Amino acid sequence: MRTALFGAGRIGRVHAASIKTDPRSELVAVTDVVNEAAAALAREHGVEARAPEDILADKNIDAILIASSTNTHAELIEKGAAAGKAIFCEKPIDLSLSRALELSKRIAGHARPMMMGFNRRFDPNFAAVNAAFAAGEVGKGEMLAVTSYDPAPPPVSYIKVSGGLYRDMMIHDFDMCSFMFGMPKTVTAHGSCLVDPEIGAAGDIDTAIVVLSYADGRIATIRNSRRAPYGYDQRLELLGSAGLLEARNEIENTVVKSTTAGVVSAKPVYFFLERYMRAYSIEWSAFVDAVVEAKPVPASIQDGVNALAMAEAANLSFAEKRTVELAEVLPGA
Amino acid sequence: MRTALFGAGRIGRVHAASIKTDPRSELVAVTDVVNEAAAALAREHGVEARAPEDILADKNIDAILIASSTNTHAELIEKGAAAGKAIFCEKPIDLSLSRALELSKRIAGHARPMMMGFNRRFDPNFAAVNAAFAAGEVGKGEMLAVTSYDPAPPPVSYIKVSGGLYRDMMIHDFDMCSFMFGMPKTVTAHGSCLVDPEIGAAGDIDTAIVVLSYADGRIATIRNSRRAPYGYDQRLELLGSAGLLEARNEIENTVVKSTTAGVVSAKPVYFFLERYMRAYSIEWSAFVDAVVEAKPVPASIQDGVNALAMAEAANLSFAEKRTVELAEVLPGA
Amino acid sequence: MRTALFGAGRIGRVHAASIKTDPRSELVAVTDVVNEAAAALAREHGVEARAPEDILADKNIDAILIASSTNTHAELIEKGAAAGKAIFCEKPIDLSLSRALELSKRIAGHARPMMMGFNRRFDPNFAAVNAAFAAGEVGKGEMLAVTSYDPAPPPVSYIKVSGGLYRDMMIHDFDMCSFMFGMPKTVTAHGSCLVDPEIGAAGDIDTAIVVLSYADGRIATIRNSRRAPYGYDQRLELLGSAGLLEARNEIENTVVKSTTAGVVSAKPVYFFLERYMRAYSIEWSAFVDAVVEAKPVPASIQDGVNALAMAEAANLSFAEKRTVELAEVLPGA
Amino acid sequence: MRTALFGAGRIGRVHAASIKTDPRSELVAVTDVVNEAAAALAREHGVEARAPEDILADKNIDAILIASSTNTHAELIEKGAAAGKAIFCEKPIDLSLSRALELSKRIAGHARPMMMGFNRRFDPNFAAVNAAFAAGEVGKGEMLAVTSYDPAPPPVSYIKVSGGLYRDMMIHDFDMCSFMFGMPKTVTAHGSCLVDPEIGAAGDIDTAIVVLSYADGRIATIRNSRRAPYGYDQRLELLGSAGLLEARNEIENTVVKSTTAGVVSAKPVYFFLERYMRAYSIEWSAFVDAVVEAKPVPASIQDGVNALAMAEAANLSFAEKRTVELAEVLPGA
Repeated sequence: MRTALFGAGRIGRVHAASIKTDPRSELVAVTDVVNEAAAALAREHGVEARAPEDILADKNIDAILIASSTNTHAELIEKGAAAGKAIFCEKPIDLSLSRALELSKRIAGHARPMMMGFNRRFDPNFAAVNAAFAAGEVGKGEMLAVTSYDPAPPPVSYIKVSGGLYRDMMIHDFDMCSFMFGMPKTVTAHGSCLVDPEIGAAGDIDTAIVVLSYADGRIATIRNSRRAPYGYDQRLELLGSAGLLEARNEIENTVVKSTTAGVVSAKPVYFFLERYMRAYSIEWSAFVDAVVEAKPVPASIQDGVNALAMAEAANLSFAEKRTVELAEVLPGA
Repeated sequence: MRTALFGAGRIGRVHAASIKTDPRSELVAVTDVVNEAAAALAREHGVEARAPEDILADKNIDAILIASSTNTHAELIEKGAAAGKAIFCEKPIDLSLSRALELSKRIAGHARPMMMGFNRRFDPNFAAVNAAFAAGEVGKGEMLAVTSYDPAPPPVSYIKVSGGLYRDMMIHDFDMCSFMFGMPKTVTAHGSCLVDPEIGAAGDIDTAIVVLSYADGRIATIRNSRRAPYGYDQRLELLGSAGLLEARNEIENTVVKSTTAGVVSAKPVYFFLERYMRAYSIEWSAFVDAVVEAKPVPASIQDGVNALAMAEAANLSFAEKRTVELAEVLPGA
Repeated sequence: MRTALFGAGRIGRVHAASIKTDPRSELVAVTDVVNEAAAALAREHGVEARAPEDILADKNIDAILIASSTNTHAELIEKGAAAGKAIFCEKPIDLSLSRALELSKRIAGHARPMMMGFNRRFDPNFAAVNAAFAAGEVGKGEMLAVTSYDPAPPPVSYIKVSGGLYRDMMIHDFDMCSFMFGMPKTVTAHGSCLVDPEIGAAGDIDTAIVVLSYADGRIATIRNSRRAPYGYDQRLELLGSAGLLEARNEIENTVVKSTTAGVVSAKPVYFFLERYMRAYSIEWSAFVDAVVEAKPVPASIQDGVNALAMAEAANLSFAEKRTVELAEVLPGA
Repeated sequence: MRTALFGAGRIGRVHAASIKTDPRSELVAVTDVVNEAAAALAREHGVEARAPEDILADKNIDAILIASSTNTHAELIEKGAAAGKAIFCEKPIDLSLSRALELSKRIAGHARPMMMGFNRRFDPNFAAVNAAFAAGEVGKGEMLAVTSYDPAPPPVSYIKVSGGLYRDMMIHDFDMCSFMFGMPKTVTAHGSCLVDPEIGAAGDIDTAIVVLSYADGRIATIRNSRRAPYGYDQRLELLGSAGLLEARNEIENTVVKSTTAGVVSAKPVYFFLERYMRAYSIEWSAFVDAVVEAKPVPASIQDGVNALAMAEAANLSFAEKRTVELAEVLPGA
C-alpha cells in the first residue's frame, strides 16, 4: 500500500514511523506547507518531498495520511476522496461541526476506506476493556468514567488556535465514550481555569468535567486537566451489572523502592508519544487491514462527526450553564 | 465517660462495641423502642436496659449516643441538649433540611460537645488523604472524585423510608467532599434506575452522579451505585496543583494467585462493617476527646446541616434537571 | 473456658486481650515472676494475680496460657499436663531440642488439648494461601519462598539469651514451611552479620538464608534479616505446577500519592503486633475450638518439635558449613 | 557501523531487527550454516547472504554479531578478533569454562570492542534497580534474590544439547548477580526434576535454587523453574541497609477486572521476546556506543567467563552436594 504523508510535524513523524511497522504499507512521499520540514522528513525515510497536487494526481499512490494542521483536514479529505485515495485523517475533521457534517455528506459515496485517527481505541489497555465489555464479562454497562490529564499545559499560542479544551483535548475522551457506550442523549459541561491564568485570559478552560447521559439511563463522566505533575494520566473505569473494568496507567518501569519514606513506584509514562506509541502502530495496521483486506474501518468519519458534536454540545452547555440535548447540535442524534 | 446508647439495631451494636475500645468511656445503659432488642444488647454488655426519659434524667450519665431510627434523631438531640448531655448522633440529623436547620439554631447555645457520626472522616485512608492535602503535599486542590458503591441494594422496603439515594446514601459522600473541599457553590445531579426496577417503581434511583462546583473553580464528582458485585467500593481521588492523592479500597487479604487465567487478587472488604470497623472506633475516641479533653468535635451539627443541604440541592437539581445553587436551599451558603 | 495467663509481659498482654475476643473464653487469673507486672495486668482486666501453684491446683481453671519466658515453657507444660489443664504455649517449647523431645514423649498421654502458639498460621493471608494450596488451586507444590524481615534488630542483651537467629527468629518461618510443605529432608544454612556488628560480637548472625529440600524434590528458601528499614516484611511465595500463590505485606493504609517524585504508597505495617493482631485473636479461637468443641489443635507439640529440629539442623549446617539431614538431629525424620 | 550477522535463527532475527533501531548501525550481510535461512533473512532486510570467510575478509565490515549456535561462538570470536572486527557475541562464550578462559587470554590484546549479549542488564527495570543501587538509594547491599522462571520447558531435544540448566538458563541470573553484587566467593546449588520427567531422564533438572555468598557476608539466591504457567516470571529483589529495591514483572496490559470472582489483572508478558524486546535494542545501542564513541562495553568477555564459572561451580556443587568455592573452578577468583 503506497502511502503519501501530508504533514511533517510532530504527529506526522510519528505516523511516518508507524507506516514502517506494517510490512504491507510503504511511505512513498511527504508533503508539508513548510518545504524544509517535508524535505527533512522525506530525506530521513529515503522518499521524495512532493507537492500536494502532484501526490493526489499520482495513480501509483494508494493512500494518503493526513497529519497536517486541523484547518486543512476537511479540504484534503475531500480532494483525497475525489482522487480516489484511501484516506487516513488525524482527528478532528474540522473545528466546525457544520463543516464536518457537510463534508461527511459530500464524501458519503466515496468507495475507498476513510478512517479517523482516534488512536486511543487501539491502545492495548482500552482495547482490552472494550473487548471484555463486548464479551459480556461485566454484564450490562451502567457507568463509565474517563480520566484524561495531560502532564503540562501547552503554550497559550497553541490554546488560542486549538478550538478550546472540549474540541481539542476532550474530543479524544468523547470518542472513548462512543467507543464504549455509543452516542449519549445529553451533555452537561463544567469547567474552570485553575492551572494557568493565561489560558483563562485566552478565553479557554484547563480543568473540566463533562457528564454524558444515555437514553437508557447509563451515565458517563469525563475529567480533563491540562496538568498532572506526575505524568500523562490516562485511565478508564466501566461499571457493569456484573463487575468493574479498569484500564490503569502504563508506568515507566516496574521498579519499587521501599524505604523509611514509603514504597515508591515509577510514574506513568510521560505523554502521548510514550503511552500511545504502540497504539499508533496498531491503528495504522487497522487502516491497512481496511485497505488491503477490505475490513471495516474501526473509526469512521461518522465517529469523527459524533465526537465533534459532543464537543459542540459541551461548548453550548458550558456557555449556557445547562444540560444540552445532543439533538440540539446534531439533528437526528 | 458514662454513656447511654439509644438504638439497639445493627449500627447501635457497632457503637456499643466501639465504646469499649476507648478505656475512657463506658456503656452504662441501652434503650430501644423494641424492648427485647434493648434487653438483649444490654445483657450482652452487662448493663441495664432503661427508658429514654429515665436515661435523660440520670445525672450520672454524661453522654448519649443516638443510633436509633432517623426520624427520632432531631427530637433526641434536642432532649439530650436540654438534659445537658454530650451528644453523639448518627447521620443524618433528619430527612428534612428545614427541621435540621431549626434544630441547629435551637441548640446553638448547648454548652457540651455535639458530634455527627460521619464515620468516613475517621477511616485511616481518607483521614490520611485529608492530612496530606492539608499539609500541602499535592498543592492547591483542583478536582475531587468520590466513588462510593454499595455491594448490593437494600430491600425496597428500606428504600421507601430512606429519603432517597441522595439523602440516604450520598450524604456520606457529600460530607466527604465537605471534609476535603468545604462547601460547594452549585450542585448538578444525574441519576438513573439501572440496578433494580423496584427501586425505580418506588420513586428512587440506584445509580447517580453529582457534580459540585466551588466558588473558586474547583470541581468535585460523586459516583454512587447501589450495586458493586465485587464488594464495597469506597475510593477517592484528589488532584492538586502538585500531584494526586488517592485512597484505594481495603481488600480482604493480600493473597495474589497467578495462573493461566490471570493474576487474581482479593476483593474489597464486603461492606461498611468490615471497611469502617476501625473508623467507628477512632470516631468514638474523637468524641471522647471532645468530651474529656475539650477538643473540638471533628464533625459538627453544621457539618450535618451542610451534607443535608447538598442532598436537598441534589434532589432539586435532579427534579428540575438544572444546576442548583446551594444558596437556594441553604440561605447564606 | 476459664483461663489463667502465665506471663504478663508484652506477648502476655497481647494474649490477655485476645482471650476477650472470643465470648467462649474468660481470663480469670494472671501470674508472673514479676509480681508488679502480674498485679498490673490483673487489675486492668479485673481479675486476680495468683501464684502459679495456686492456679494449677484450682479445679475451676480449665486452661493455661503460657506466655512467660522461654526457659519456663517446658516445666509449665509438664505441670499443666499433670494438673489436667488444656494448654496453650507460646513458641518455642524450649531452646533445647532434646528437652523438647523428652517433654513431648512425657506428655504424650495428656488427654486435653495442647497447642503451640505459631500465630502466623492464623494470619488471614498465609491461611488463605494454605487453603488455596490445599484446595489444589496451583496444583502440586514445587518451590516455597518465605521472606521474613524484622523492622529493626532487638538489643544485643536480647540476642544473647535468644538462642540465636535460627531458633529465635527463623523458627516461625520453619513452622511456616512445615505448615505449607511438611517436614523437609535436609537443611542448608547460610548467614552473616551485616546489620549490627554487636550481634556478631555476641556470636550471632542477623542476615540468613536457609534452603530446605524435601524427599520428593520440592525446595524451600527462607530469608531473614533483623532489619528492614521500611517495616515488617512478611511475605511468602508458593510455586505449584499450575501457578503461583503469594501472600504480600499488609500496608498501613491504602493511600497513594503521585507527584513528580514518583508514586508513593504506604509502608508495610510496622511490626508483629500490627501485622498479626488479627492472627492472635483467630489463633486463640482455634484453641477454644479445640477445648470446647474437641476440634484438633491446628499447631501441635509435634509442630513445635519439628520447628525446633529444623533450627537445630540449621545451627549444625551453619557451624559445619554443610547440608544437614533432618534425621541427624531428629531420629526418624 | 556496517555489521554482519552470523546466525539467522530466532535470536538472529531479533538482533537483525535491533540493528535497525540504531541509526548509527546498518546490517550489511547475513550468514548461516543453513543457506536457506541466511538467504531468507537477508532478503527480508535487503542485504546479501554471504560466506563467513568472505565476511571476515571484507574490510568494509566493521562489526560482527554472533548469534549462531553456542558451539561456534569461541571460534568466531577468535576469527573475528584476528580479522580486526568489533564483536558482539550472544551468551555463552562456550559450554566449556576452560575453553572460554583460554579464548579470553588469547584475545586479550584485541584492540576493538568485544561485548557479551547479556541482554537483561539492559532491561529498563533491572537497569533502574542497578542505577538506584549504585546511587546509594538503599544503602549498602545485603541480600539479593533473583526469580527467573520460563513459561514452559523447551523440548527435551534442546535440553540434551543445552549444557544443563545452570549453564543454559541460570547463566543469565548468574550474570544478573554479577551485575548487582560482583563475583561471589562460594556457590551452593540445589536442584530437582519436578516439571518434566523426560528432563530428568536426560540427566538434567528443571527446578533449581542456588545460593551465592560473598566475601563480605552478602548473600544472593537464584530461583529457576522451567515452567511458570502464568508466563515469564522475571523479578529481582535487593535488600540494602536503607531499603529494598524490587523489579517486578512487566504485564500484558493494565486492565483490571473486578467481579464476584476476585480482582483479576493481566499476566506477565509471555516470554523473553516480549519482555526483553526493548532490552535487545538498548543493548545494541550500547555496543554501537562502544564502537562508535569508544565507550567501555557494559558486558565484557570477563563477564562471560564469570557467569560460566558460576555455572561450573553450581554443577560441581550439585554433583558433590557441597558448597563450592569459586576459586576451585576459576583460579584467582
